[in-house]
Amino acid sequence: MPVDGRLVRGEATRRAILERATDVASVEGLEGLSIGRLAADLELSKSGVFALFGSKEELQLAAIRFAGDIFADNVTRPTLEVEPGIGRLRALCENWLGYSERRIFPGGCFFFHTGAEFDARPGRVHDAVAEAGTAFSVFITRTAREAQDIGELRADIDVSLLAFELHALGQAANADSVLHGGIEPYRLARAGMRNRVGGAASTSRPPMASVPQGVPAARRWPGSASAG
Amino acid sequence: MPVDGRLVRGEATRRAILERATDVASVEGLEGLSIGRLAADLELSKSGVFALFGSKEELQLAAIRFAGDIFADNVTRPTLEVEPGIGRLRALCENWLGYSERRIFPGGCFFFHTGAEFDARPGRVHDAVAEAGTAFSVFITRTAREAQDIGELRADIDVSLLAFELHALGQAANADSVLHGGIEPYRLARAGMRNRVGGAASTSRPPMASVPQGVPAARRWPGSASAG
Repeated sequence: MPVDGRLVRGEATRRAILERATDVASVEGLEGLSIGRLAADLELSKSGVFALFGSKEELQLAAIRFAGDIFADNVTRPTLEVEPGIGRLRALCENWLGYSERRIFPGGCFFFHTGAEFDARPGRVHDAVAEAGTAFSVFITRTAREAQDIGELRADIDVSLLAFELHALGQAANADSVLHGGIEPYRLARAGMRNRVGGAASTSRPPMASVPQGVPAARRWPGSASAG
Repeated sequence: MPVDGRLVRGEATRRAILERATDVASVEGLEGLSIGRLAADLELSKSGVFALFGSKEELQLAAIRFAGDIFADNVTRPTLEVEPGIGRLRALCENWLGYSERRIFPGGCFFFHTGAEFDARPGRVHDAVAEAGTAFSVFITRTAREAQDIGELRADIDVSLLAFELHALGQAANADSVLHGGIEPYRLARAGMRNRVGGAASTSRPPMASVPQGVPAARRWPGSASAG
């Protein structure tokens, strides 16, 4: 069956619009998005862009899903390639800082920016960014709990608190670096994360043979809907 | 000399506008401010509001200064009433979390919200929010260093890292609580701050007589221009 050329072009156009939309939103916020502006930026007809998204709110929600895919590609999927345990927890910290530091989005972490923008504004856009934030918090907590379950973090460690602290350090690195420039915030966040994870590590790891088998891995990241 | 009634009314009007402006900006951002909207909200003439501020950018900058005064009243001034040392550092953490938790601004910390909004947008508004953020970081670091200088924090503690971690925890508590609701983020931030400060405390404090006299207090917070 021949590929439908209009469909291919429609998908490519949609993708180009969402790439531009997420870049703009990471700097100017989701309120800064407008169908007219994106159409002008990309030299498309306004009616064509409107036909693909239908409303500004649908465009905002599509941008959040698209950014979630990019977040998953850069942070959560590479983390899940590492064996569960303290190594995966360290990989998660590094993948997350790297994603912010490399400016995958020109304004730094898309979800930090849009989370702050919509934190106190009720509606579907708020709910979508809040859900992405929650999914990422849960992912960090689950990664830490796995490491605890196999004995690589001490049993007395409060993994919710550890996850909150790692999350706080990553967010602060992103925020400070974007606001003030420079790489010092990443150095400080890496040092803090190393101290937190190192301080929580078991001093004597069980011999390999006694590590429980069949510990369930963190569930796959729900790529298209979540990030943080 | 009689008080000039027009001047008094002008100051009261200016204050009412800035109270409304900072409340709006903490929820919708500084871009959400417009002279027309504030005039309508407060039933003032647009030309009257314009006469007081001159431009949207001047209004944004005035709102940042006004919010800085409120931040100083709630966070930095009460902290400076406590003797320098670990007690002052703990008071700083608690005053800051309390300011966020009590929702002095309806959208949580004014400077968190506007910092994220303008982080990647060059200009005078960016510079003003970045300066406020820097001033607060410096204040935290100086408070920690004082505690170290008088022997209440261990000499091997990196006070820049400690300040970064405390700052990160407070920002995360504000962000998570505003985005998701609830008080759990404040509980986690308090636990994290307690661990960080407690972990940095000297195990044996010098006897009172040997505490150096005349250690300079942190300089007074420059009330009208800074916060974070």
